[in-house]
Amino acid sequence: MAEGYELHYWPSIQGRGEYVRLALEEARADYVDVARADEGAAMMRLVGGGKIATPPFAPPILKAGRLLIGQTANILLFLGERHKLAPQGESGRLWTHQLQLTMCDFIVEIHDTHHPISSGLYYEEQKPEAKRRSREFLKHRLPRFLGYFERVIAANAKGKGHLVGARLSYVDLSLFQLIAGLRYAFPRAMKREERRHRRLVALHDHVARRPAIAAYLASERRIPFNEEGIFRRYRELDG
Amino acid sequence: MAEGYELHYWPSIQGRGEYVRLALEEARADYVDVARADEGAAMMRLVGGGKIATPPFAPPILKAGRLLIGQTANILLFLGERHKLAPQGESGRLWTHQLQLTMCDFIVEIHDTHHPISSGLYYEEQKPEAKRRSREFLKHRLPRFLGYFERVIAANAKGKGHLVGARLSYVDLSLFQLIAGLRYAFPRAMKREERRHRRLVALHDHVARRPAIAAYLASERRIPFNEEGIFRRYRELDG
Repeated sequence: MAEGYELHYWPSIQGRGEYVRLALEEARADYVDVARADEGAAMMRLVGGGKIATPPFAPPILKAGRLLIGQTANILLFLGERHKLAPQGESGRLWTHQLQLTMCDFIVEIHDTHHPISSGLYYEEQKPEAKRRSREFLKHRLPRFLGYFERVIAANAKGKGHLVGARLSYVDLSLFQLIAGLRYAFPRAMKREERRHRRLVALHDHVARRPAIAAYLASERRIPFNEEGIFRRYRELDG
Repeated sequence: MAEGYELHYWPSIQGRGEYVRLALEEARADYVDVARADEGAAMMRLVGGGKIATPPFAPPILKAGRLLIGQTANILLFLGERHKLAPQGESGRLWTHQLQLTMCDFIVEIHDTHHPISSGLYYEEQKPEAKRRSREFLKHRLPRFLGYFERVIAANAKGKGHLVGARLSYVDLSLFQLIAGLRYAFPRAMKREERRHRRLVALHDHVARRPAIAAYLASERRIPFNEEGIFRRYRELDG
Protein backbone atom coordinates (compact mmCIF):
# COMPACT_ATOMS: atom_id res chain seq x y z
CA MET A 1 0.00 0.00 0.00
CA ALA A 2 1.80 3.10 -1.23
CA GLU A 3 -0.62 5.72 0.02
CA GLY A 4 -1.11 6.41 3.70
CA TYR A 5 -4.28 6.16 5.77
CA GLU A 6 -5.95 8.75 7.92
CA LEU A 7 -7.66 7.46 11.06
CA HIS A 8 -10.26 9.78 12.53
CA TYR A 9 -11.35 9.10 16.09
CA TRP A 10 -11.57 10.80 19.48
CA PRO A 11 -8.21 12.15 20.66
CA SER A 12 -8.07 10.91 24.26
CA ILE A 13 -9.54 7.41 24.42
CA GLN A 14 -8.75 4.02 22.94
CA GLY A 15 -12.43 3.31 22.34
CA ARG A 16 -13.54 1.66 19.13
CA GLY A 17 -10.65 3.30 17.31
CA GLU A 18 -8.27 0.94 19.09
CA TYR A 19 -9.45 -2.09 17.09
CA VAL A 20 -8.48 -0.22 13.93
CA ARG A 21 -5.16 1.01 15.38
CA LEU A 22 -4.15 -2.54 16.29
CA ALA A 23 -4.79 -3.73 12.72
CA LEU A 24 -2.87 -0.79 11.24
CA GLU A 25 0.05 -1.36 13.62
CA GLU A 26 0.22 -5.12 13.01
CA ALA A 27 0.17 -4.44 9.26
CA ARG A 28 2.90 -1.79 9.75
CA ALA A 29 0.69 0.44 7.66
CA ASP A 30 1.49 4.08 7.08
CA TYR A 31 -1.22 6.05 8.93
CA VAL A 32 -1.87 9.29 10.74
CA ASP A 33 -4.03 9.29 13.87
CA VAL A 34 -5.42 12.65 12.95
CA ALA A 35 -7.25 13.57 16.15
CA ARG A 36 -4.07 13.21 18.24
CA ALA A 37 -2.80 16.37 16.54
CA ASP A 38 -5.99 18.41 16.00
CA GLU A 39 -8.12 17.39 19.00
CA GLY A 40 -10.74 15.80 16.79
CA ALA A 41 -11.55 18.88 14.70
CA ALA A 42 -11.29 17.12 11.32
CA MET A 43 -13.27 14.17 12.64
CA MET A 44 -16.06 16.45 13.81
CA ARG A 45 -16.28 17.93 10.33
CA LEU A 46 -16.57 14.46 8.80
CA VAL A 47 -19.32 13.44 11.21
CA GLY A 48 -21.03 16.78 10.71
CA GLY A 49 -21.64 15.70 7.16
CA GLY A 50 -21.82 18.88 5.14
CA LYS A 51 -21.14 18.10 1.51
CA ILE A 52 -19.87 14.55 1.97
CA ALA A 53 -21.58 12.03 -0.34
CA THR A 54 -21.21 9.21 2.20
CA PRO A 55 -21.44 10.91 5.61
CA PRO A 56 -20.43 8.69 8.55
CA PHE A 57 -22.68 8.51 11.60
CA ALA A 58 -19.87 8.32 14.14
CA PRO A 59 -16.14 7.63 14.41
CA PRO A 60 -13.90 5.67 13.92
CA ILE A 61 -13.56 6.65 10.29
CA LEU A 62 -10.77 5.53 7.97
CA LYS A 63 -9.71 7.57 4.99
CA ALA A 64 -8.03 5.37 2.41
CA GLY A 65 -7.35 7.32 -0.76
CA ARG A 66 -10.79 8.32 -2.03
CA LEU A 67 -12.61 5.91 0.26
CA LEU A 68 -14.16 7.12 3.50
CA ILE A 69 -15.07 4.10 5.61
CA GLY A 70 -17.08 4.11 8.83
CA GLN A 71 -18.07 1.45 11.36
CA THR A 72 -15.30 -0.45 13.14
CA ALA A 73 -16.13 -3.88 11.73
CA ASN A 74 -16.47 -2.47 8.21
CA ILE A 75 -13.04 -0.83 8.44
CA LEU A 76 -11.54 -4.11 9.62
CA LEU A 77 -13.25 -6.00 6.79
CA PHE A 78 -11.51 -3.62 4.40
CA LEU A 79 -8.11 -3.70 6.14
CA GLY A 80 -8.24 -7.47 6.57
CA GLU A 81 -8.44 -7.91 2.82
CA ARG A 82 -5.82 -5.28 1.98
CA HIS A 83 -3.25 -6.41 4.51
CA LYS A 84 -3.84 -10.16 4.63
CA LEU A 85 -5.20 -9.96 8.16
CA ALA A 86 -8.06 -12.31 7.25
CA PRO A 87 -8.59 -15.39 5.06
CA GLN A 88 -8.98 -14.50 1.40
CA GLY A 89 -11.81 -16.86 0.39
CA GLU A 90 -15.50 -15.94 0.78
CA SER A 91 -16.34 -18.36 3.58
CA GLY A 92 -13.30 -17.43 5.68
CA ARG A 93 -13.86 -13.73 5.07
CA LEU A 94 -17.51 -13.92 6.16
CA TRP A 95 -16.69 -16.06 9.20
CA THR A 96 -13.99 -13.66 10.38
CA HIS A 97 -16.35 -10.71 9.91
CA GLN A 98 -19.10 -12.56 11.77
CA LEU A 99 -16.79 -12.97 14.77
CA GLN A 100 -15.88 -9.28 14.66
CA LEU A 101 -19.56 -8.32 14.61
CA THR A 102 -20.15 -10.50 17.66
CA MET A 103 -17.26 -8.72 19.35
CA CYS A 104 -18.88 -5.40 18.46
CA ASP A 105 -22.09 -6.58 20.17
CA PHE A 106 -19.98 -7.51 23.18
CA ILE A 107 -18.39 -4.04 23.19
CA VAL A 108 -21.81 -2.36 23.30
CA GLU A 109 -22.75 -4.48 26.31
CA ILE A 110 -19.46 -3.66 28.03
CA HIS A 111 -19.99 0.05 27.40
CA ASP A 112 -23.54 -0.06 28.65
CA THR A 113 -22.48 -1.46 32.04
CA HIS A 114 -21.55 2.11 32.96
CA HIS A 115 -24.06 3.83 30.68
CA PRO A 116 -27.28 1.78 30.81
CA ILE A 117 -29.64 4.76 30.51
CA SER A 118 -27.95 7.11 28.06
CA SER A 119 -24.54 7.89 26.64
CA GLY A 120 -25.63 11.53 26.86
CA LEU A 121 -25.65 11.44 30.67
CA TYR A 122 -22.67 11.16 32.99
CA TYR A 123 -21.96 7.89 34.77
CA GLU A 124 -22.73 9.65 38.04
CA GLU A 125 -26.26 10.30 36.76
CA GLN A 126 -26.98 6.59 36.25
CA LYS A 127 -25.07 4.83 38.99
CA PRO A 128 -27.84 2.68 40.52
CA GLU A 129 -28.83 1.46 37.07
CA ALA A 130 -25.17 0.85 36.19
CA LYS A 131 -24.73 -1.30 39.29
CA ARG A 132 -27.74 -3.37 38.39
CA ARG A 133 -26.75 -3.78 34.76
CA SER A 134 -23.17 -4.68 35.69
CA ARG A 135 -24.35 -7.35 38.08
CA GLU A 136 -26.37 -8.98 35.29
CA PHE A 137 -23.50 -8.53 32.84
CA LEU A 138 -20.91 -10.18 35.07
CA LYS A 139 -23.23 -13.01 35.97
CA HIS A 140 -24.62 -13.87 32.54
CA ARG A 141 -23.18 -12.01 29.59
CA LEU A 142 -19.48 -11.92 30.36
CA PRO A 143 -19.22 -15.73 30.81
CA ARG A 144 -21.45 -16.28 27.79
CA PHE A 145 -19.31 -14.18 25.43
CA LEU A 146 -15.98 -15.43 26.81
CA GLY A 147 -17.19 -19.02 26.70
CA TYR A 148 -18.25 -18.51 23.10
CA PHE A 149 -14.88 -17.23 21.91
CA GLU A 150 -13.08 -19.93 23.90
CA ARG A 151 -15.18 -22.52 22.05
CA VAL A 152 -14.41 -20.90 18.70
CA ILE A 153 -10.67 -21.27 19.31
CA ALA A 154 -11.18 -24.88 20.40
CA ALA A 155 -13.30 -25.63 17.32
CA ASN A 156 -10.72 -24.18 14.93
CA ALA A 157 -9.28 -27.36 13.46
CA LYS A 158 -6.35 -25.53 11.87
CA GLY A 159 -5.56 -24.62 15.41
CA LYS A 160 -2.48 -23.02 16.91
CA GLY A 161 -4.73 -21.06 19.23
CA HIS A 162 -6.05 -18.56 16.70
CA LEU A 163 -9.73 -17.78 16.25
CA VAL A 164 -9.70 -18.31 12.48
CA GLY A 165 -7.50 -20.51 10.32
CA ALA A 166 -3.81 -21.19 10.88
CA ARG A 167 -2.50 -17.66 11.30
CA LEU A 168 -3.18 -14.30 12.88
CA SER A 169 -6.24 -12.34 11.75
CA TYR A 170 -7.78 -9.06 12.82
CA VAL A 171 -10.21 -10.79 15.18
CA ASP A 172 -7.25 -12.10 17.19
CA LEU A 173 -6.13 -8.49 17.59
CA SER A 174 -9.62 -7.42 18.66
CA LEU A 175 -9.82 -10.28 21.13
CA PHE A 176 -6.52 -9.13 22.65
CA GLN A 177 -8.03 -5.68 23.17
CA LEU A 178 -11.19 -7.11 24.73
CA ILE A 179 -9.22 -9.19 27.25
CA ALA A 180 -6.88 -6.29 28.06
CA GLY A 181 -9.83 -3.93 28.51
CA LEU A 182 -11.88 -6.33 30.60
CA ARG A 183 -8.88 -6.92 32.86
CA TYR A 184 -8.63 -3.18 33.34
CA ALA A 185 -12.34 -2.63 33.98
CA PHE A 186 -13.24 -5.74 35.96
CA PRO A 187 -10.05 -7.09 37.57
CA ARG A 188 -11.88 -9.16 40.18
CA ALA A 189 -14.39 -10.72 37.81
CA MET A 190 -11.72 -11.43 35.22
CA LYS A 191 -9.48 -13.19 37.70
CA ARG A 192 -12.29 -15.70 38.10
CA GLU A 193 -13.11 -15.89 34.37
CA GLU A 194 -9.55 -16.34 33.20
CA ARG A 195 -9.20 -19.63 34.99
CA ARG A 196 -11.98 -21.00 32.83
CA HIS A 197 -10.82 -19.45 29.58
CA ARG A 198 -7.20 -20.41 29.15
CA ARG A 199 -7.27 -20.25 25.37
CA LEU A 200 -8.34 -16.61 25.45
CA VAL A 201 -5.54 -15.71 27.83
CA ALA A 202 -3.00 -17.56 25.69
CA LEU A 203 -4.19 -15.74 22.57
CA HIS A 204 -4.04 -12.40 24.39
CA ASP A 205 -0.45 -13.12 25.40
CA HIS A 206 0.48 -14.29 21.92
CA VAL A 207 -0.82 -11.06 20.36
CA ALA A 208 0.94 -8.91 22.97
CA ARG A 209 4.24 -10.52 21.96
CA ARG A 210 3.89 -9.87 18.24
CA PRO A 211 6.81 -7.55 17.46
CA ALA A 212 4.72 -4.81 15.85
CA ILE A 213 2.09 -4.93 18.59
CA ALA A 214 4.67 -5.00 21.40
CA ALA A 215 6.34 -1.94 19.89
CA TYR A 216 2.99 -0.19 19.59
CA LEU A 217 1.95 -0.96 23.18
CA ALA A 218 5.23 0.46 24.45
CA SER A 219 4.87 3.64 22.39
CA GLU A 220 3.07 6.90 23.05
CA ARG A 221 0.69 6.03 20.26
CA ARG A 222 -1.07 3.69 22.70
CA ILE A 223 -3.43 5.80 24.82
CA PRO A 224 -3.69 4.43 28.38
CA PHE A 225 -7.05 3.06 29.54
CA ASN A 226 -9.03 5.73 31.37
CA GLU A 227 -12.48 6.52 32.71
CA GLU A 228 -13.69 8.21 29.54
CA GLY A 229 -13.41 5.17 27.33
CA ILE A 230 -15.38 1.97 26.90
CA PHE A 231 -13.48 0.02 29.57
CA ARG A 232 -13.75 1.92 32.84
CA ARG A 233 -12.51 0.87 36.23
CA TYR A 234 -15.28 1.63 38.69
CA ARG A 235 -14.69 -0.59 41.70
CA GLU A 236 -18.38 -0.57 42.60
CA LEU A 237 -19.28 -2.25 39.29
CA ASP A 238 -16.77 -5.09 39.62
CA GLY A 239 -18.96 -7.59 41.43
CA MET B 1 -29.35 -19.34 -7.30
CA ALA B 2 -30.43 -22.91 -7.86
CA GLU B 3 -30.16 -24.20 -4.30
CA GLY B 4 -32.49 -23.00 -1.59
CA TYR B 5 -31.64 -21.20 1.64
CA GLU B 6 -32.49 -22.13 5.19
CA LEU B 7 -33.22 -19.26 7.55
CA HIS B 8 -32.88 -20.08 11.22
CA TYR B 9 -34.45 -17.66 13.69
CA TRP B 10 -36.96 -17.57 16.51
CA PRO B 11 -40.37 -18.86 15.47
CA SER B 12 -42.71 -16.18 16.85
CA ILE B 13 -41.10 -12.77 16.35
CA GLN B 14 -39.94 -10.64 13.43
CA GLY B 15 -36.82 -9.59 15.32
CA ARG B 16 -33.51 -9.38 13.52
CA GLY B 17 -34.60 -12.22 11.24
CA GLU B 18 -37.00 -9.83 9.54
CA TYR B 19 -34.20 -7.86 7.85
CA VAL B 20 -33.07 -11.11 6.25
CA ARG B 21 -36.61 -12.19 5.34
CA LEU B 22 -37.25 -8.90 3.54
CA ALA B 23 -34.11 -9.35 1.43
CA LEU B 24 -35.01 -12.96 0.59
CA GLU B 25 -38.56 -11.98 -0.32
CA GLU B 26 -37.51 -9.04 -2.50
CA ALA B 27 -35.02 -11.33 -4.27
CA ARG B 28 -37.78 -13.95 -4.66
CA ALA B 29 -35.24 -16.40 -3.32
CA ASP B 30 -36.13 -19.98 -2.54
CA TYR B 31 -35.93 -20.29 1.26
CA VAL B 32 -37.38 -22.15 4.20
CA ASP B 33 -38.03 -20.28 7.45
CA VAL B 34 -37.10 -23.36 9.42
CA ALA B 35 -38.22 -22.33 12.90
CA ARG B 36 -41.78 -21.70 11.73
CA ALA B 37 -42.14 -25.48 11.35
CA ASP B 38 -39.96 -26.85 14.16
CA GLU B 39 -40.35 -24.17 16.86
CA GLY B 40 -36.67 -23.27 16.71
CA ALA B 41 -35.29 -26.72 17.47
CA ALA B 42 -32.78 -26.79 14.59
CA MET B 43 -31.72 -23.23 15.36
CA MET B 44 -31.03 -24.08 18.99
CA ARG B 45 -28.79 -26.93 17.85
CA LEU B 46 -26.83 -24.55 15.60
CA VAL B 47 -26.38 -22.02 18.40
CA GLY B 48 -25.51 -24.82 20.81
CA GLY B 49 -22.42 -25.36 18.74
CA GLY B 50 -21.51 -29.01 19.18
CA LYS B 51 -19.38 -30.11 16.27
CA ILE B 52 -19.86 -27.08 14.06
CA ALA B 53 -16.59 -25.61 12.80
CA THR B 54 -18.02 -22.09 12.68
CA PRO B 55 -20.56 -21.96 15.54
CA PRO B 56 -22.82 -18.89 15.49
CA PHE B 57 -23.33 -16.91 18.69
CA ALA B 58 -27.01 -16.16 18.08
CA PRO B 59 -29.65 -16.18 15.35
CA PRO B 60 -30.47 -15.16 12.66
CA ILE B 61 -28.40 -17.73 10.82
CA LEU B 62 -28.54 -18.36 7.08
CA LYS B 63 -27.62 -21.69 5.60
CA ALA B 64 -26.55 -21.31 1.99
CA GLY B 65 -25.22 -24.55 0.62
CA ARG B 66 -22.16 -25.33 2.74
CA LEU B 67 -22.00 -21.82 4.18
CA LEU B 68 -23.40 -21.10 7.62
CA ILE B 69 -23.62 -17.32 8.07
CA GLY B 70 -24.45 -15.47 11.27
CA GLN B 71 -24.95 -11.79 12.18
CA THR B 72 -27.74 -9.91 10.40
CA ALA B 73 -25.50 -7.40 8.62
CA ASN B 74 -23.13 -10.16 7.52
CA ILE B 75 -26.01 -12.15 6.02
CA LEU B 76 -27.20 -9.08 4.15
CA LEU B 77 -23.68 -8.38 2.89
CA PHE B 78 -23.72 -11.89 1.42
CA LEU B 79 -27.26 -11.71 0.02
CA GLY B 80 -26.70 -8.22 -1.36
CA GLU B 81 -23.90 -9.49 -3.53
CA ARG B 82 -25.66 -12.68 -4.60
CA HIS B 83 -28.97 -11.07 -5.48
CA LYS B 84 -27.89 -7.65 -6.71
CA LEU B 85 -29.43 -5.95 -3.69
CA ALA B 86 -26.33 -3.74 -3.31
CA PRO B 87 -23.85 -1.95 -5.56
CA GLN B 88 -21.22 -4.30 -6.96
CA GLY B 89 -18.09 -2.14 -6.64
CA GLU B 90 -15.97 -2.03 -3.48
CA SER B 91 -16.83 1.51 -2.42
CA GLY B 92 -20.58 1.04 -2.88
CA ARG B 93 -20.52 -2.33 -1.19
CA LEU B 94 -18.69 -0.94 1.87
CA TRP B 95 -20.92 2.12 2.05
CA THR B 96 -24.10 0.04 1.95
CA HIS B 97 -22.73 -2.27 4.64
CA GLN B 98 -21.73 0.74 6.74
CA LEU B 99 -25.32 1.98 6.67
CA GLN B 100 -26.62 -1.45 7.65
CA LEU B 101 -24.21 -1.57 10.60
CA THR B 102 -25.47 1.83 11.74
CA MET B 103 -29.03 0.48 11.50
CA CYS B 104 -27.93 -2.48 13.63
CA ASP B 105 -26.64 -0.05 16.27
CA PHE B 106 -30.01 1.71 16.08
CA ILE B 107 -31.81 -1.62 16.57
CA VAL B 108 -29.83 -2.34 19.75
CA GLU B 109 -30.83 1.06 21.13
CA ILE B 110 -34.48 0.47 20.22
CA HIS B 111 -34.41 -2.93 21.92
CA ASP B 112 -32.78 -1.55 25.02
CA THR B 113 -35.56 0.99 25.57
CA HIS B 114 -37.59 -1.88 27.07
CA HIS B 115 -34.57 -3.91 28.29
CA PRO B 116 -32.03 -1.42 29.64
CA ILE B 117 -30.76 -3.67 32.46
CA SER B 118 -30.74 -7.16 30.98
CA SER B 119 -32.28 -9.17 28.18
CA GLY B 120 -32.40 -12.02 30.70
CA LEU B 121 -34.99 -10.21 32.82
CA TYR B 122 -38.62 -9.49 31.97
CA TYR B 123 -39.68 -6.00 31.00
CA GLU B 124 -41.76 -5.87 34.17
CA GLU B 125 -38.56 -6.31 36.18
CA GLN B 126 -36.94 -3.18 34.69
CA LYS B 127 -39.82 -0.77 34.13
CA PRO B 128 -38.50 2.33 35.92
CA GLU B 129 -35.19 2.02 34.10
CA ALA B 130 -37.02 1.42 30.81
CA LYS B 131 -39.01 4.61 31.27
CA ARG B 132 -35.89 6.60 31.89
CA ARG B 133 -34.00 5.09 28.99
CA SER B 134 -36.97 5.56 26.63
CA ARG B 135 -37.25 9.22 27.56
CA GLU B 136 -33.60 9.77 26.65
CA PHE B 137 -33.99 7.68 23.51
CA LEU B 138 -37.00 9.60 22.23
CA LYS B 139 -35.45 12.96 23.03
CA HIS B 140 -31.94 12.41 21.68
CA ARG B 141 -31.27 9.17 19.88
CA LEU B 142 -34.43 8.71 17.79
CA PRO B 143 -34.14 12.15 16.14
CA ARG B 144 -30.39 11.71 15.71
CA PHE B 145 -30.67 8.39 13.88
CA LEU B 146 -33.69 9.42 11.79
CA GLY B 147 -32.06 12.75 10.93
CA TYR B 148 -28.94 10.88 9.85
CA PHE B 149 -30.72 8.55 7.44
CA GLU B 150 -32.81 11.44 6.10
CA ARG B 151 -29.54 13.27 5.33
CA VAL B 152 -28.09 10.19 3.64
CA ILE B 153 -31.04 10.03 1.24
CA ALA B 154 -30.73 13.76 0.57
CA ALA B 155 -26.97 13.44 -0.05
CA ASN B 156 -27.42 10.57 -2.51
CA ALA B 157 -26.76 12.38 -5.78
CA LYS B 158 -28.07 9.49 -7.88
CA GLY B 159 -31.25 10.15 -6.02
CA LYS B 160 -34.74 8.81 -6.58
CA GLY B 161 -35.16 8.62 -2.82
CA HIS B 162 -33.01 5.56 -2.19
CA LEU B 163 -30.29 5.43 0.45
CA VAL B 164 -27.61 4.17 -1.94
CA GLY B 165 -27.21 4.66 -5.66
CA ALA B 166 -30.01 4.76 -8.22
CA ARG B 167 -31.91 1.64 -7.27
CA LEU B 168 -33.23 -0.42 -4.39
CA SER B 169 -30.70 -2.02 -2.03
CA TYR B 170 -31.02 -4.10 1.13
CA VAL B 171 -30.62 -1.04 3.34
CA ASP B 172 -33.80 0.42 1.84
CA LEU B 173 -35.58 -2.76 2.94
CA SER B 174 -34.10 -2.50 6.43
CA LEU B 175 -35.11 1.15 6.66
CA PHE B 176 -38.68 0.17 5.78
CA GLN B 177 -38.67 -2.28 8.68
CA LEU B 178 -37.26 0.31 11.07
CA ILE B 179 -39.94 2.85 10.21
CA ALA B 180 -42.72 0.24 10.37
CA GLY B 181 -41.45 -1.01 13.72
CA LEU B 182 -40.98 2.44 15.23
CA ARG B 183 -44.52 3.36 14.17
CA TYR B 184 -45.77 0.29 15.97
CA ALA B 185 -43.71 0.85 19.13
CA PHE B 186 -43.83 4.62 19.45
CA PRO B 187 -46.90 5.90 17.55
CA ARG B 188 -47.00 9.25 19.35
CA ALA B 189 -43.31 10.01 19.03
CA MET B 190 -43.27 8.92 15.40
CA LYS B 191 -46.18 11.15 14.46
CA ARG B 192 -43.98 14.07 15.47
CA GLU B 193 -40.81 12.70 13.86
CA GLU B 194 -42.39 11.83 10.53
CA ARG B 195 -43.21 15.45 9.83
CA ARG B 196 -39.48 16.21 9.89
CA HIS B 197 -38.37 13.15 7.96
CA ARG B 198 -40.41 13.06 4.78
CA ARG B 199 -37.80 11.21 2.76
CA LEU B 200 -37.83 8.31 5.21
CA VAL B 201 -41.61 8.06 5.02
CA ALA B 202 -41.53 8.18 1.22
CA LEU B 203 -38.91 5.42 1.11
CA HIS B 204 -40.94 3.31 3.55
CA ASP B 205 -43.98 3.70 1.31
CA HIS B 206 -42.01 2.94 -1.81
CA VAL B 207 -40.68 -0.32 -0.35
CA ALA B 208 -44.14 -1.35 0.89
CA ARG B 209 -45.41 -1.07 -2.70
CA ARG B 210 -42.72 -3.27 -4.25
CA PRO B 211 -44.67 -6.23 -5.65
CA ALA B 212 -42.65 -8.93 -3.86
CA ILE B 213 -42.70 -7.03 -0.56
CA ALA B 214 -46.42 -6.21 -0.78
CA ALA B 215 -47.15 -9.90 -1.39
CA TYR B 216 -44.97 -10.88 1.54
CA LEU B 217 -46.56 -8.38 3.92
CA ALA B 218 -50.01 -9.70 3.02
CA SER B 219 -48.96 -13.31 3.54
CA GLU B 220 -48.81 -15.48 6.65
CA ARG B 221 -45.06 -15.51 6.32
CA ARG B 222 -45.05 -12.02 7.88
CA ILE B 223 -45.31 -12.43 11.64
CA PRO B 224 -47.30 -9.57 13.22
CA PHE B 225 -45.51 -7.17 15.56
CA ASN B 226 -45.91 -8.26 19.17
CA GLU B 227 -44.59 -7.65 22.66
CA GLU B 228 -41.91 -10.31 22.48
CA GLY B 229 -39.97 -8.72 19.67
CA ILE B 230 -37.65 -5.76 19.34
CA PHE B 231 -40.41 -3.24 18.64
CA ARG B 232 -42.89 -3.35 21.53
CA ARG B 233 -45.87 -1.12 22.11
CA TYR B 234 -45.79 -0.12 25.75
CA ARG B 235 -47.81 3.05 26.05
CA GLU B 236 -45.87 4.19 29.11
CA LEU B 237 -42.64 4.33 27.09
CA ASP B 238 -44.06 6.43 24.26
CA GLY B 239 -43.29 9.90 25.65
